[in-house]
Amino acid sequence: MELTAEQQAAIAAEREATATTRRATVPALEDILYQTIPVLDHGFIRVIDYMGDDGAVVQAARVSYGAGTRRVQDDAALIGYLMRHRHTTPFEMCEIKYHVKLPIFVARQWIRHRTASVNEISGRYSILDKEYYLPAAEHLAAQSTANRQGRGTALTAAEAANVLSLLREDAERCYAHYEDMLNQDRFGNPLDPARSGLARELARMNLTLATYTQWYWKIDLHNLMHFLSLRADPHAQYEIRAYAEAMMDTLQRWLPVTFAAFQEHRLGGVHLSAKALAVVRRLLAGEDVDTASSGLSKREWRELMQAIGRTP
Amino acid sequence: MELTAEQQAAIAAEREATATTRRATVPALEDILYQTIPVLDHGFIRVIDYMGDDGAVVQAARVSYGAGTRRVQDDAALIGYLMRHRHTTPFEMCEIKYHVKLPIFVARQWIRHRTASVNEISGRYSILDKEYYLPAAEHLAAQSTANRQGRGTALTAAEAANVLSLLREDAERCYAHYEDMLNQDRFGNPLDPARSGLARELARMNLTLATYTQWYWKIDLHNLMHFLSLRADPHAQYEIRAYAEAMMDTLQRWLPVTFAAFQEHRLGGVHLSAKALAVVRRLLAGEDVDTASSGLSKREWRELMQAIGRTP
Amino acid sequence: MELTAEQQAAIAAEREATATTRRATVPALEDILYQTIPVLDHGFIRVIDYMGDDGAVVQAARVSYGAGTRRVQDDAALIGYLMRHRHTTPFEMCEIKYHVKLPIFVARQWIRHRTASVNEISGRYSILDKEYYLPAAEHLAAQSTANRQGRGTALTAAEAANVLSLLREDAERCYAHYEDMLNQDRFGNPLDPARSGLARELARMNLTLATYTQWYWKIDLHNLMHFLSLRADPHAQYEIRAYAEAMMDTLQRWLPVTFAAFQEHRLGGVHLSAKALAVVRRLLAGEDVDTASSGLSKREWRELMQAIGRTP
Amino acid sequence: MELTAEQQAAIAAEREATATTRRATVPALEDILYQTIPVLDHGFIRVIDYMGDDGAVVQAARVSYGAGTRRVQDDAALIGYLMRHRHTTPFEMCEIKYHVKLPIFVARQWIRHRTASVNEISGRYSILDKEYYLPAAEHLAAQSTANRQGRGTALTAAEAANVLSLLREDAERCYAHYEDMLNQDRFGNPLDPARSGLARELARMNLTLATYTQWYWKIDLHNLMHFLSLRADPHAQYEIRAYAEAMMDTLQRWLPVTFAAFQEHRLGGVHLSAKALAVVRRLLAGEDVDTASSGLSKREWRELMQAIGRTP
Repeated sequence: MELTAEQQAAIAAEREATATTRRATVPALEDILYQTIPVLDHGFIRVIDYMGDDGAVVQAARVSYGAGTRRVQDDAALIGYLMRHRHTTPFEMCEIKYHVKLPIFVARQWIRHRTASVNEISGRYSILDKEYYLPAAEHLAAQSTANRQGRGTALTAAEAANVLSLLREDAERCYAHYEDMLNQDRFGNPLDPARSGLARELARMNLTLATYTQWYWKIDLHNLMHFLSLRADPHAQYEIRAYAEAMMDTLQRWLPVTFAAFQEHRLGGVHLSAKALAVVRRLLAGEDVDTASSGLSKREWRELMQAIGRTP
Repeated sequence: MELTAEQQAAIAAEREATATTRRATVPALEDILYQTIPVLDHGFIRVIDYMGDDGAVVQAARVSYGAGTRRVQDDAALIGYLMRHRHTTPFEMCEIKYHVKLPIFVARQWIRHRTASVNEISGRYSILDKEYYLPAAEHLAAQSTANRQGRGTALTAAEAANVLSLLREDAERCYAHYEDMLNQDRFGNPLDPARSGLARELARMNLTLATYTQWYWKIDLHNLMHFLSLRADPHAQYEIRAYAEAMMDTLQRWLPVTFAAFQEHRLGGVHLSAKALAVVRRLLAGEDVDTASSGLSKREWRELMQAIGRTP
Repeated sequence: MELTAEQQAAIAAEREATATTRRATVPALEDILYQTIPVLDHGFIRVIDYMGDDGAVVQAARVSYGAGTRRVQDDAALIGYLMRHRHTTPFEMCEIKYHVKLPIFVARQWIRHRTASVNEISGRYSILDKEYYLPAAEHLAAQSTANRQGRGTALTAAEAANVLSLLREDAERCYAHYEDMLNQDRFGNPLDPARSGLARELARMNLTLATYTQWYWKIDLHNLMHFLSLRADPHAQYEIRAYAEAMMDTLQRWLPVTFAAFQEHRLGGVHLSAKALAVVRRLLAGEDVDTASSGLSKREWRELMQAIGRTP
Repeated sequence: MELTAEQQAAIAAEREATATTRRATVPALEDILYQTIPVLDHGFIRVIDYMGDDGAVVQAARVSYGAGTRRVQDDAALIGYLMRHRHTTPFEMCEIKYHVKLPIFVARQWIRHRTASVNEISGRYSILDKEYYLPAAEHLAAQSTANRQGRGTALTAAEAANVLSLLREDAERCYAHYEDMLNQDRFGNPLDPARSGLARELARMNLTLATYTQWYWKIDLHNLMHFLSLRADPHAQYEIRAYAEAMMDTLQRWLPVTFAAFQEHRLGGVHLSAKALAVVRRLLAGEDVDTASSGLSKREWRELMQAIGRTP
């Protein structure tokens, strides 16, 4: 992830300018405001703006006239209660805005979350940057045999080298042909004065899904936690998970009390189905239960055993 | 609209506390932050928090690395362009949060806007305040004969006095019976130690729709403008329009460039249907057009003539 | 719940008219289409239209070319998998539309669900019906002492009688004054030719929150299940729960496979927080755990013990 | 657009199966139900399901007990009124579901409409088909010089041939390498038994944005019209416009009255800004107005002259 000198200067200028505000302000998040946090080989996230703090959640839940915070302990109990009982609306009262640079195939998963606001760089309007994702060798894994949607064991070094060279060559060639069709290089310089260039909105279709794009992405706290609970999950594809994990750190800086409740009541917990709950009750009553007598499918059984710490 | 001493102190404390921030900050809005702006007889709005400024709209439209603003003139042109061509997503990048006190029948119109976040005071949890809306005499009007959804001429003084006395007496009696059923007064003091009190969630059903409620309401700029374009419109009921107009002032303080574009391209403009456009073309070509030859309904014709300044 | 002869005839006519369709069709739901299902004293729900069946969920999950259903057993397994892993989008592919008649205080809870489409009868446009909710005596309960948002023990017969008489008298008087202010009775007949009538949009504010209103309400299956999981829950207020329970029956008729998965994975299950899960593991390992050593609050402890069947 | 024999058989079977229903049914839409309507070189749309008819809009607006339709003439007037005054909620009461096959770069524009439900074929789960978009020669145009987001004049035959050959070769090569990395051909047959295959979720990133994908897409009528007003607009990129135009035909079949109102009040009309309206008033008053004295920008002036039929 390399920024141009101009981009670095713009970010530095943003960070230097300060103002006085009456709004709820979170110093730990201000510390990293506007800074790029690297993700993958060329991507990043950076927090551009935010609204509210832990107190804002409390304040909305109480519909109060003054600042939200009574005592930190009371607030933590209330936030835990709200999280536990799915009183989600007070968590909509905080907002955060990110600038994200990410490969297009990741962007396509990400955009499925419809409760956010997005402004993406336009390939109709601008020439897209020449940057594409190449996985680190340790992330090149074979198709999982157990899970139709996941990765299994790592490729051998030779296989990995072959994959990387195919990915690199195709991305390079496709980008070169993109410039050729545009009849412009990536800085906008004309190539062959005797030719027209194809419209940008068409030429871009020659790029691969590994190409990086970028967007501004704004979301409220409730929907951010929903996004993170799905995308920081081990079942999520590694590449989007890398972004979700970087965002988890920004959430912790921003709203430490809400973050702790999120860990306790969402991420660290488990949902038991009616049959799984019945199995737990039988086990607690001292009964012997196995897959067959549980009424669960093999997969459900395995997941339950894992959840209650009985992995064979 | 009277606040208790405790509420006044809480607001004063909020206004006094300041912090340093790197975020986009709007001094003209900070000036009135947390202050109550009176609406109707007991209602108010107050701005509790905000995110973004005019530059944030520009920044998102350009997906830029630094602050949004180049030159004020460029930004105004871009914002006008976005507004004119319905590029609405950059306007979603700003957020504002209000604390609003309003009669329940107004709240029921307001809540139809689903793209906002709301936390309302709970009548299951709390005893509702003894405050109800009584229209000023000049707002007591007869049913319109021309418009099934509006008001016509003002009532006579005697009729108005009768209406106000009915509204006041019923509101007072219903509230007194609410306390009676709760077996508590409005400050939570028990009334008759020998009786149980009815659950709050049931007793509240005896209150009239004129009773005031309050909520925290957060919305993005795009959806705020949509709300205002419908609710600050002359066809909106006077009572919700009074709130919308107070919010217009806060919008102007917050985002003067966007506000001007909103006036120019939304509020001050007009939408012509295909047939209305054909009429305008014929008139410009010097043709004589009347209702019959226009193909418009009488109501459409009247509205068109009004729009183009040809009211008879 | 009484319909006029005209309304009954309109419903009968709707039920008689049939057509041939290539769409997915569910006979068990067709059986009750348009029929009113009574709820509370004057309310009802009735299913007006629907789109999709269990196969539509499967079809969307597979993005297939033909009908969704392979074998019922496969489909049930897939639907269970989708429900368990929170793959919610295929459940958005079915829609249902209800006509609902309900008290305004229930409508105010209901409308908080923003992911539905609503058309409510307009008190600006029409004179509202003279119908208000009076709870059955057995539902008149005192405020709960354990739960600030709920009901406790039933009122005595004398207390209940007092409450009912207050509710009835205030509703009657408020409605009579509503007619008086309108200067029209509820059928639209003018009262005093010498007077103007107050505009409907103002007069309605004199009605109590017990007054019935009605609306068309359309929602997709995913959001319907979310609504039902919150509103058919024992923590929901009885009155809205009565509607949710009637809707549960329509869901079971419509989509029996999805309904069973919803019971198994949502309603019948339980979510354990990180600390609650740790307690279960310790109990399964034979350890003695009490409230103090659990790290849970008293309320969390009580709820966990209840979930795992260890109520003292 | 070629379907396999199996796909054709599945569609034929869907079309043959019929049922009796009490629901509102639209024969003109039933006629084409499930049929593929070709778009671009390999794409299609097909209507999979629908809910409601013109009468359902009317019925919701009136919150009536029986079928929506009184007299066709009344209904048309009401629908026109609703459209003209932006009473959008009754239009949410109808739903339509499409199965769409489309290039990924088109899918990325399409998905920006967040008020729809989508199930896309998963490149984590399945091997994507070997189909990519090659524009017809007449659609290969140079970048517009007047509009940074559009196309200008057509490429010369030689330039077009060069572009097509680059697009074809890169798409073919990228797909071949996709199979190579998967170590499977597109039918799932293993290639080299001595090698592992890369996980599908990674290999897909080598495909270009011209690759076809497919999804189920469900939307309500109000949001469909919003989508069509933006995507059937001449400013939209040709490729997505081709889909929007095919969908316009299905809308006309489905809801002829609403379609006519949509044409009259949305597509065929024009929005005048405050300044543009002032210009029209001055012109109608016989005044001479030119760009300079109009207060409009050159672009706004040009667009206004075009709208009122005064193109020089």
